[in-house]
Amino acid sequence: MSLLSGPPRVITVGAEPLGEALDAQAVARTPVAWRPPLPGTADALARVLADPRRAAANELAVRRLTAARPHLIGVRPAALALDLPERTFLHAGPPITWERASGPMRGALIGAMLLEGWADDEQEAVAGLAEGRVALEPCHHHRTVGPMAGVVSPSMWMFEVRDEEHGGTAYCSLNEGLGKVLRYGAYGPEVLRRLRWMGEVLGPALASALAMTGPIDLRAMIAQALQMGDELHNRNRAATSLLLRELAPALVEAAAGRAAEVLRFAGGNDHFFLNAAMAAAKAATDAARDIPGSSLVVAMARNGTDFGVQVSGLGSRWFTGPAGVPDGLYLGAYGPADANPDIGDSTITETAGLGGFAMAAAPAIVRFVGGEVDDAVAATRSMYEITLAEHPAFQIPGLGFRGTPVGIDVALIARTGVLPVVNTGIAGRVAGTGQVGAGLVSPPAEAFTKALQALTKRSAIE
Amino acid sequence: MSLLSGPPRVITVGAEPLGEALDAQAVARTPVAWRPPLPGTADALARVLADPRRAAANELAVRRLTAARPHLIGVRPAALALDLPERTFLHAGPPITWERASGPMRGALIGAMLLEGWADDEQEAVAGLAEGRVALEPCHHHRTVGPMAGVVSPSMWMFEVRDEEHGGTAYCSLNEGLGKVLRYGAYGPEVLRRLRWMGEVLGPALASALAMTGPIDLRAMIAQALQMGDELHNRNRAATSLLLRELAPALVEAAAGRAAEVLRFAGGNDHFFLNAAMAAAKAATDAARDIPGSSLVVAMARNGTDFGVQVSGLGSRWFTGPAGVPDGLYLGAYGPADANPDIGDSTITETAGLGGFAMAAAPAIVRFVGGEVDDAVAATRSMYEITLAEHPAFQIPGLGFRGTPVGIDVALIARTGVLPVVNTGIAGRVAGTGQVGAGLVSPPAEAFTKALQALTKRSAIE
Repeated sequence: MSLLSGPPRVITVGAEPLGEALDAQAVARTPVAWRPPLPGTADALARVLADPRRAAANELAVRRLTAARPHLIGVRPAALALDLPERTFLHAGPPITWERASGPMRGALIGAMLLEGWADDEQEAVAGLAEGRVALEPCHHHRTVGPMAGVVSPSMWMFEVRDEEHGGTAYCSLNEGLGKVLRYGAYGPEVLRRLRWMGEVLGPALASALAMTGPIDLRAMIAQALQMGDELHNRNRAATSLLLRELAPALVEAAAGRAAEVLRFAGGNDHFFLNAAMAAAKAATDAARDIPGSSLVVAMARNGTDFGVQVSGLGSRWFTGPAGVPDGLYLGAYGPADANPDIGDSTITETAGLGGFAMAAAPAIVRFVGGEVDDAVAATRSMYEITLAEHPAFQIPGLGFRGTPVGIDVALIARTGVLPVVNTGIAGRVAGTGQVGAGLVSPPAEAFTKALQALTKRSAIE
Repeated sequence: MSLLSGPPRVITVGAEPLGEALDAQAVARTPVAWRPPLPGTADALARVLADPRRAAANELAVRRLTAARPHLIGVRPAALALDLPERTFLHAGPPITWERASGPMRGALIGAMLLEGWADDEQEAVAGLAEGRVALEPCHHHRTVGPMAGVVSPSMWMFEVRDEEHGGTAYCSLNEGLGKVLRYGAYGPEVLRRLRWMGEVLGPALASALAMTGPIDLRAMIAQALQMGDELHNRNRAATSLLLRELAPALVEAAAGRAAEVLRFAGGNDHFFLNAAMAAAKAATDAARDIPGSSLVVAMARNGTDFGVQVSGLGSRWFTGPAGVPDGLYLGAYGPADANPDIGDSTITETAGLGGFAMAAAPAIVRFVGGEVDDAVAATRSMYEITLAEHPAFQIPGLGFRGTPVGIDVALIARTGVLPVVNTGIAGRVAGTGQVGAGLVSPPAEAFTKALQALTKRSAIE
């Protein structure tokens, strides 16, 4: 059949006015949003896409990620729960030294020194840290995640989450609330007082209540919360309410004398559930690790200086680029000049198909980060371009219950140039400041393209 | 300028293929969805629309409706809270006699006789009711609303809600949970046992907790819940969670010994908040009553036999038509043949811009009543055609935070033929059965057209 014998079939690419001219003439057309791959990735992309293991490896990896069934099974002190070496603090993001650490990371480390009694005052804490008397290791190296600075010290109590599908375990600290808090780099007396109360009252009370209720299905609770306007990164109001509703009767029976203060503290903080969501996301993404040939991202994390990713087929290697400064709304008199570069392990939510990837489920969030409802929908829709699956349990009502985009593929990022959408809190750049705002941030493309390059080498070796 | 000198400007009405033919020729057109007014209403409509008082009266009425600030201020037994005459039960909907009462209404009245000890068994209860030894009055005549059968007897505890803007007070009973419950017409021993526990434990515990927290702003809580997937009629999961989160610490302190069982009971029932939402809606709509010339609907209510409306400019007169059978999904082996006609005062939520009018806020609900997300959005959008305002506080995230359609105008119903969308539970038609399903129901048009006719007479007199 000749091209000229039928009606024209038109594909349009690039500048829209040309396509619109066809519309005005009532000519049907198929618009295609095509972009060249990220600069310098064409060769690596060709080799990775040609890796015969890739399709099956990615299918297995994303199946494990989405099949995980994380349950909250306990609340325990880090010293008992984690394999922490002596005199070690954990922190968010890829590895970092004291010298390269940003203000809020330093502030949180100072606070942890004071909390543990390893220093008597700020000066002594700084000296100890600068002299390397305490080892610093990423949370991610210990099956752990931490929001913002993500500093974990032995006496802090942790959510313990088990993936009932694959058997893995993951941890996250308890949420301190908003304002002047350690995770944003504040370490004043009220910060330490609150952390001590969390260790003496909150942690044990939650542990007793949980022993009474039995494991709580976080996969189901997160699925519910997505239908209630949470995206589980910057908005956790529904999930926090559901968790407290579940725990409250047991809290009363298990910790009668302290139940009211615990309910008041947790109930006063819409982000209380965030840390449980992070541990759930960590348990799920860990299930997808170490599958040879897989280009699936299993961790995205920021230490306030570097943004790093880990990829299933590349073991525990980090691929990094400079952390960007989020673009968003600022609290009170703060402005962009007060903002620290992006920080925290909370991007584990995006890695697991939540947070920025689920923005369409949480239209209220766009006002918080400065935007319109359509922006939230567009953000989620664009993430389907760089992900391998739609989550079978995490659904978005506003998109006709379509599953959230899940399973970031570094090859798809390089191919499309679309970077993961992250929505995040913004820490003040000066140690001790606390939170100054919240917004959106784009990760550095080079973290993903370096991983892509590494996949070609790994592929050549294996 | 001649019609022929410029490009054609085309309005299309009616059959779509004609309009589509223009689209295929790339001719711009403005489609208009026009329908004739409801049969037989043209004259009345002309007179009501010409009433010089109407615009200002409706503006005042809907301003009062949307400005109301209902707060939950107490929980008290009906005998103390209401102006109940001796030996009187309240019931849902417009006035009804025992003879005309449907199965679930009869069942609930029998249960109330047994609960109050005014009869020793079912037979004695039926005899007493049939002989008129207990007076039956609509809840609405006593500043009260009740879900489904809506039966209120002196010993039942009530939510007490005050409109802090205009000073009015409204009441609703406490929610019993799902399954075999009085409001669906069940009256077995477990129903009565639960009602006694609610009077002895639940009511007093909630009252003590509320005395400690102080009034709870239901307008703000409902606004929040709309952003969390509730529409406050068939879905109250978020609002229930938020209310319990607010009350839990005070419950522990005010009712230590019973706090766990109260939290377990209320927390186990996603509809616990419904009755508070209904009292809030009643307080708001009552603020819009008795404005001469206003065609605003201030109550829609069903007694299981009749559907009735009250209109602001027509005092406390009821205009009724036969209650329809809801179209929806059925529980277990139940089917349409088991369904009772529409029953309950819960349509006060739709009257106040919630429930079916806010369906677009609760896409999860459409699965429950059998439909798609687009149906929920379409339902809400169509209600803007028969309402006088968009609620300033009740916003729908998925519609770009547009306010819910609020303030039903009988003139707009007659003009457009669009009837209010109601989503509701379905009671079994046999006394004692309980709930058999949930679905959507259209009210009878004649209830609204009778009110329109009455407005013309009232207008002629005044």
